[in-house]
Amino acid sequence: VILTVTLNAALDATYFIEGDLNPGETHRVCAIAERAGGKGVNVARVLHQLGEDVIATGLVGGRTGDHVQSLLDAEGVSAAFVRIAGESRRTTVVVAASSATGFWEPGPAVTGAEWADFRAGFERLLARADTVVLSGSLPPGIPVEAYADLIRLARAAEVPTLLDADGDALRFGIAAGPAVVVPNAAELAELSSQPVDGIASAERAGRSALTMGGQAVVATLGVRGVVLIEPGRCLRAWPLHPVAGNPTGAGDACVAGLARTVGRPWAERLSEAVALGAAAAAVPTAGAVDLPTYQQQRLHVALEEC
Amino acid sequence: VILTVTLNAALDATYFIEGDLNPGETHRVCAIAERAGGKGVNVARVLHQLGEDVIATGLVGGRTGDHVQSLLDAEGVSAAFVRIAGESRRTTVVVAASSATGFWEPGPAVTGAEWADFRAGFERLLARADTVVLSGSLPPGIPVEAYADLIRLARAAEVPTLLDADGDALRFGIAAGPAVVVPNAAELAELSSQPVDGIASAERAGRSALTMGGQAVVATLGVRGVVLIEPGRCLRAWPLHPVAGNPTGAGDACVAGLARTVGRPWAERLSEAVALGAAAAAVPTAGAVDLPTYQQQRLHVALEEC
Repeated sequence: VILTVTLNAALDATYFIEGDLNPGETHRVCAIAERAGGKGVNVARVLHQLGEDVIATGLVGGRTGDHVQSLLDAEGVSAAFVRIAGESRRTTVVVAASSATGFWEPGPAVTGAEWADFRAGFERLLARADTVVLSGSLPPGIPVEAYADLIRLARAAEVPTLLDADGDALRFGIAAGPAVVVPNAAELAELSSQPVDGIASAERAGRSALTMGGQAVVATLGVRGVVLIEPGRCLRAWPLHPVAGNPTGAGDACVAGLARTVGRPWAERLSEAVALGAAAAAVPTAGAVDLPTYQQQRLHVALEEC
Repeated sequence: VILTVTLNAALDATYFIEGDLNPGETHRVCAIAERAGGKGVNVARVLHQLGEDVIATGLVGGRTGDHVQSLLDAEGVSAAFVRIAGESRRTTVVVAASSATGFWEPGPAVTGAEWADFRAGFERLLARADTVVLSGSLPPGIPVEAYADLIRLARAAEVPTLLDADGDALRFGIAAGPAVVVPNAAELAELSSQPVDGIASAERAGRSALTMGGQAVVATLGVRGVVLIEPGRCLRAWPLHPVAGNPTGAGDACVAGLARTVGRPWAERLSEAVALGAAAAAVPTAGAVDLPTYQQQRLHVALEEC
């Protein structure tokens, strides 16, 4: 079982309006799409779509949390969320004729007791887990060492962990030695305090990140593909036929690719990540892949030692 | 008891963001305010604030409907809503540094059986009602003659009705002879197929509306005040010291003023409507009045036969 952790799960709403978004005016929403969201939930949904055995855990609360849970149930994604008293956040994206504009609610406040509950449940779930994926932001009240804490618990249970976070959550998390850290260019640049604007700079920044505790870094660079940096090795993979489309959620699909190939050779893992990232770009909403695109892309990934 | 009817009740959310709203970008929401909404709910809240005995009825459904109900409970507004299977709509207003931008979800689909349930409940509530206020849009599935139907039931029970609607709901509703119709300039212009850009044109359009079935028309004209048109009479009232502020909900406060003064002389009723409209403009959210502003404005209303 692959266990995904989403501590700041969300209800992702998409509002479709006619014409443009005009600040200062009122717009009628023509159609609404709602999905369970948060980066770990997106990873879980992609894995479920690929037929993997996955459990989504994390924190949900309030009516919005109920809704998140019911949407996951309807999709058939196994979920084991811990209930909190606060209200899970909503994200709203307004899709207009020529723009997509986002509004991100802040996450709910989480108490120390709720975090302790989650931590205890996580330990129990670890007994069934082959791989753990830790993705996304930490809601208010969660200690900044949360990911480090969970990574240590997983290591003690000999379960490999993938970490996709940013800022302090990433900085503290990497120190606990996750199996793979999966930053994008901006996250890697911030973590390493070095500019990341290409393959060579990603390798340099990745080497710097390895000294912080990670066992391997896979930097995701959009249509330029991904770069693996581990001690003594740098391997790049990229799509020969990049998909122009929706970049939101492509990183989550890459993480899903790495999570389902734990123990396999890096060439295979990176190819999987690249193909799933491209297949995610082919779908207008985050947290899903286009399966025919995935099958096609899988055959057209370039690999090069850097 | 004043009975307010809100067939398309809503959850009104206000998102506060820092800086400007930039289409195409993602914005963090710093603070969120949520209220029960819909025009009839706003009227009920103002009446409750003034100490009137009020019952808010209408249709609510889904998690959003539960939330609307719980917000009314928390405010102490008596509510007797009929539950529907559909999900009540949300409205979101994004307040940025220099603009307020609205997104209106469509209303829920209402079945014939749900409408029949509401209608039966309305008849029972009429036995306790002194006045009925019918406000706002009709959700999908509600017959366009809905307000006409409810007005006929109220007339049969000898309960006076105030109607604040637009488009076909207003056109069909006025034919049933409500005691007072309360259109704004745009609604009156559409109803009468005449331009309304001042007092004289409002009087002409109001006379035309009277021929459609209303017993009296009170046109609300913003800071220019209100104009009563009834057979043989035209009376204008306006604030001597207009309040610059939030116009949203000022019309609902005017309706509350007319609803709490049924049976009183028109000069008093219009003064009440004008003072409450001004007191609503002094509050940044819809459906509430600033009581000190109301007391002050009440003393400074001009009245003139036109």
